[in-house]
Amino acid sequence: MPSEFELINRYFKRQTTTQQDVILGIGDDAALMAIPAGELLVATADTLVAGRHFPIDTPPHAIAYKALAVNLSDLAAMGATPRWFLLALTLEESDDTFLSSFAEGLFQLADAHQIALVGGDTTKGHLAMTITALGTVPLGQALCRQGAQVGDGIYVSGTVGDAGVGLATVLQQQNLGLTTAQQVFCRQRLDYPTPRLGLGQALRGLASACLDISDGLAQDLGHILKASQVGADIELSVLPLSSALQQLPPRQAWHYALTAGDDYELCFCLPDSHYATLMSQGWPITRIGTVSAHTGLRCWYQGQPYQMAYAGYQHF
Amino acid sequence: MPSEFELINRYFKRQTTTQQDVILGIGDDAALMAIPAGELLVATADTLVAGRHFPIDTPPHAIAYKALAVNLSDLAAMGATPRWFLLALTLEESDDTFLSSFAEGLFQLADAHQIALVGGDTTKGHLAMTITALGTVPLGQALCRQGAQVGDGIYVSGTVGDAGVGLATVLQQQNLGLTTAQQVFCRQRLDYPTPRLGLGQALRGLASACLDISDGLAQDLGHILKASQVGADIELSVLPLSSALQQLPPRQAWHYALTAGDDYELCFCLPDSHYATLMSQGWPITRIGTVSAHTGLRCWYQGQPYQMAYAGYQHF
Repeated sequence: MPSEFELINRYFKRQTTTQQDVILGIGDDAALMAIPAGELLVATADTLVAGRHFPIDTPPHAIAYKALAVNLSDLAAMGATPRWFLLALTLEESDDTFLSSFAEGLFQLADAHQIALVGGDTTKGHLAMTITALGTVPLGQALCRQGAQVGDGIYVSGTVGDAGVGLATVLQQQNLGLTTAQQVFCRQRLDYPTPRLGLGQALRGLASACLDISDGLAQDLGHILKASQVGADIELSVLPLSSALQQLPPRQAWHYALTAGDDYELCFCLPDSHYATLMSQGWPITRIGTVSAHTGLRCWYQGQPYQMAYAGYQHF
Repeated sequence: MPSEFELINRYFKRQTTTQQDVILGIGDDAALMAIPAGELLVATADTLVAGRHFPIDTPPHAIAYKALAVNLSDLAAMGATPRWFLLALTLEESDDTFLSSFAEGLFQLADAHQIALVGGDTTKGHLAMTITALGTVPLGQALCRQGAQVGDGIYVSGTVGDAGVGLATVLQQQNLGLTTAQQVFCRQRLDYPTPRLGLGQALRGLASACLDISDGLAQDLGHILKASQVGADIELSVLPLSSALQQLPPRQAWHYALTAGDDYELCFCLPDSHYATLMSQGWPITRIGTVSAHTGLRCWYQGQPYQMAYAGYQHF
């Protein structure tokens, strides 16, 4: 069996010198990186455990892509420029087929955003991985959960609920009556989430609060409301739904849109004065409601109160 | 069962505002930190898997302590000042007894070095954890594996081989004839490694190469030799051995000293001109040999060549 060092050399030690901000990459006790003047370091770490955060049958390419994507999504939610990441990979055994596909998925996303793998660890055990993503953001421009003001619009990027339907399809929990193409689309959304890095950076200085939707829109928006000590009214009829979700009965589609995790779209609050600036840049965003002074999240359907049972992803 | 958020709040969200270089700690999508002017970011990540990197019966207090210690040891080996860390903890279940002891061990070491937990993740699965340790080092002063020069002295800190004997005692592989006190000492060395942070920082500008001994002195010194394209001659009779190891037959003691991992002492090379500077500071270091022009590692016993079968820790 190849040693850890051989594994690292074969699959992960590459292109660490192409970025000028990487002073010392993989191969020493730690990596050395240069932070641009006037910027803060932004750091986040997320773990994916096989069978829990991705279906067992997920291709290694998608596992790696998603492991990096969910971390980059956290950087996007802060408005950060992604720069580097560390990968701690735990594998049942050293498997060339797995590792080659895994590395391909990993670097496909890393290369797209020009971020460098600068370190990590490979260990033996139940398949799981932790990625630590590092980026920078200009001083005073980071987007936080705190800061939403009464009257701000509430926005989401892309469409919501797709990954949840993708997971339901994998688990065959119920027959949703989707076409094969719609099922493939939703599975793709589950396996290959798109970190909204460009949008996050565009929101610097504009959004009053921001996060990414990992546990479901209702629960995650709730974090903004709690941190900002405000409430929200959202209008279900304008929730951005993919054509797949539009095939479902509205109540079911809203349920996925509000409670299913893994979409990794951004949810943010924006003063109306900044609306035009942002829309002129063509970002795929939808205004779904308004920050209000009451406590908690209220849902409306065409102006009528709408009661919804919702709960986000439970980690334990 | 408590949610992830409750767990984080109860055990890990604390003292994140006491460090001025933490702009935003736990509780948002990512943390924000300020890097001192003129310093580089230093980053490393290591995973500990239950039953593989620590015996199953290890107290949670020690598991956490060690998980952080091995990462801080990597920062020490770079000469870095440790500042922040992220913890990705995977647990079979949310267990108050475990978590309370775990958090105590974690913060005991973190507080001793005034470093802040700024983020991470808690997930459900086989017990394992990845810590990413972040620090800084003044530009141009990081210690690397590359740089050892022919004629430099080779040094190790503390004593070597103790953790290996500690592990052998746990596994009851063989009766080493140690007293209970000696066994306890070696187990302590296995469970509570001391990251040599002060020494690492003292070596800035002095050591020509440095790393920490995680996989065994012979294998790890081999990394310096390979990176620096030099060889080494070491004298077995001067290897720093604890009184526990001094009880063993010399051949057996050297075997542990050279091949057993988990000591987390520093191994470094130093021009003789810097020897007096360092010794005057009272660091517990021993000169064990000399960097030479031939290839590879040669062991000597009182001037005679000594053939040793050695292998370091195999990760796979």
